[in-house]
Amino acid sequence: MKNYKLAIVGATGLVGRTALKVLEEKNLPNIEYTLFCSYKSAGQKIKFLGKEYTAIELKNDSFDEGFDFAIFSAGAETSKHFAPIAAAKGCTVIDNSSAFRMEKDVPLIVPEVNFNDVYKNHGIIANPNCSTIQAVVALKPLDDKYNIKRIVYSTYQAVSGAGKLGLEDLENGSQKLPPLKFSHPIYDNCLPHIDSFLTNRYTKEEMKMVNETRKILNKPDLAITATAVRVPVRNCHGESINIEFEKSFKIEDIFSILSNSPGIIVKDDLENLIYPTASIANGHDEVFVGRIRKDYSIENGLNLWVVADNLRKGAASNAIQIVEKLIESEI
Amino acid sequence: MKNYKLAIVGATGLVGRTALKVLEEKNLPNIEYTLFCSYKSAGQKIKFLGKEYTAIELKNDSFDEGFDFAIFSAGAETSKHFAPIAAAKGCTVIDNSSAFRMEKDVPLIVPEVNFNDVYKNHGIIANPNCSTIQAVVALKPLDDKYNIKRIVYSTYQAVSGAGKLGLEDLENGSQKLPPLKFSHPIYDNCLPHIDSFLTNRYTKEEMKMVNETRKILNKPDLAITATAVRVPVRNCHGESINIEFEKSFKIEDIFSILSNSPGIIVKDDLENLIYPTASIANGHDEVFVGRIRKDYSIENGLNLWVVADNLRKGAASNAIQIVEKLIESEI
Repeated sequence: MKNYKLAIVGATGLVGRTALKVLEEKNLPNIEYTLFCSYKSAGQKIKFLGKEYTAIELKNDSFDEGFDFAIFSAGAETSKHFAPIAAAKGCTVIDNSSAFRMEKDVPLIVPEVNFNDVYKNHGIIANPNCSTIQAVVALKPLDDKYNIKRIVYSTYQAVSGAGKLGLEDLENGSQKLPPLKFSHPIYDNCLPHIDSFLTNRYTKEEMKMVNETRKILNKPDLAITATAVRVPVRNCHGESINIEFEKSFKIEDIFSILSNSPGIIVKDDLENLIYPTASIANGHDEVFVGRIRKDYSIENGLNLWVVADNLRKGAASNAIQIVEKLIESEI
Repeated sequence: MKNYKLAIVGATGLVGRTALKVLEEKNLPNIEYTLFCSYKSAGQKIKFLGKEYTAIELKNDSFDEGFDFAIFSAGAETSKHFAPIAAAKGCTVIDNSSAFRMEKDVPLIVPEVNFNDVYKNHGIIANPNCSTIQAVVALKPLDDKYNIKRIVYSTYQAVSGAGKLGLEDLENGSQKLPPLKFSHPIYDNCLPHIDSFLTNRYTKEEMKMVNETRKILNKPDLAITATAVRVPVRNCHGESINIEFEKSFKIEDIFSILSNSPGIIVKDDLENLIYPTASIANGHDEVFVGRIRKDYSIENGLNLWVVADNLRKGAASNAIQIVEKLIESEI
């Protein structure tokens, strides 16, 4: 069996740490790890797989020693500079940033949804935005059967999506400190503002959901609108998804399709007050779907409530699943 | 000038207390107040308008002494029993509960929207559900001009809407106590569950938004769907509202209509990162509207983000505004 060298870039960040946790749980065989970080964090000791690792500063020659894979979770600027360098040295990069997602020759992959697109890569594979990943896992099997015509997204996004400073803002919030990460206090407040504002009056986050959903579902003209809202929850994003299909459906078929699709756990038992919540999704790699019901305001309408761990399935776990499937497909 | 006798029913509850606060701020002339409560709270001393009031137990003969108005905020069961008794004695009841809202001969009033319907009352006027009130204040002037065809609501509702125990659950939440009011912890969690579940898989709260919006806008067949979610915020509801109009519009006209409509404050200055939040709406009677933008996924689509103080405009202040306007219209 082949041995693989895997670089974790941004190992000291929130997604990087989550990646290490997920990798410890999975304990994949025959992989040798190197943990990269910024100049600032270099030298940090990290306990991982029973050993003590030292985080190493990422440099232009870091990929000279022949990596098979690198998972980048260090922001768009780091990815823009270093991912092409890594790819040129023969390393397959799975990039968690937004840097390359919409580039034509960069596949944007959610393993449950469009893994076969991965082979179009030229060394860089993009991991979608967290809020997009959990949505498309739920939408894909329904699109296959009923053909989605339009989507209205409203999100309830956790502060961990904004990194360590986002978490700190929520935790400090009751003390009335000025926010470190957000533009306004997030404690006791919802902020309809994630990432920066664009000239079309949408946020980048909202347009990521529109454009990435289209790319992943391979429906470049799909009608989608989105409102992205940060809520005072530490981890796990919620989404209210309103869908219009071309074809008619029976609600019991939606239940059975979702229950039998990969990566989905249906939590929808109203009698016992069971539905997806952050507290249920936290620490899991599956996407939790509930509040499944017809939207009676249009002909083939459906409402869903979708929750997932944004640090895991929305970032680290999705990237690791890509690596796993690439290794499997080589064997 | 006439003197009026006004009863506050449920004076010791969260909405009742808010009503007293709003009445103190307004300091309406020529009104004599009586504060009613349940057997359990009877005898409580309440400082109000510089005097000490004693909350009195509400009984079948409480309305014998000739009240002009009563604001009921003591739940549907109390309203069902006592509001007809009060009305029969010639008292005009403004009822904050859901008991009579959908009854044909009970007007459901938001003063900025449909005050003229108030005169159809037979002694009972219903105050709409909090999440409906703030929505219709924003929607009415747009409906008048562009004719709303369909609405998709997703709400971000504060715990104060669930009363004192709801607030306690949020405040106790980090201590991992079992919830007093909610079915699951609300601290660090969003719950897609407000009021009880119905056989159509919607919650009562969601169907209130559908049915009450139709009644207030006087559009009994308007296409509406709703997802109502409780968020870990103490006070002020947020709403992501997606609207489809019959007629086309210019986005600058939407800004100017909303800015010039009663009861609305537009907060939408993206360059300065200004948009409605709970922290901005808290303590105010206006409805705050922002994130105003075209929904490019349909022909005449619009997205709005609407925030209001659910205890004030969503309950107490709306009821008091009805009383004020009734008094004005008599003068």
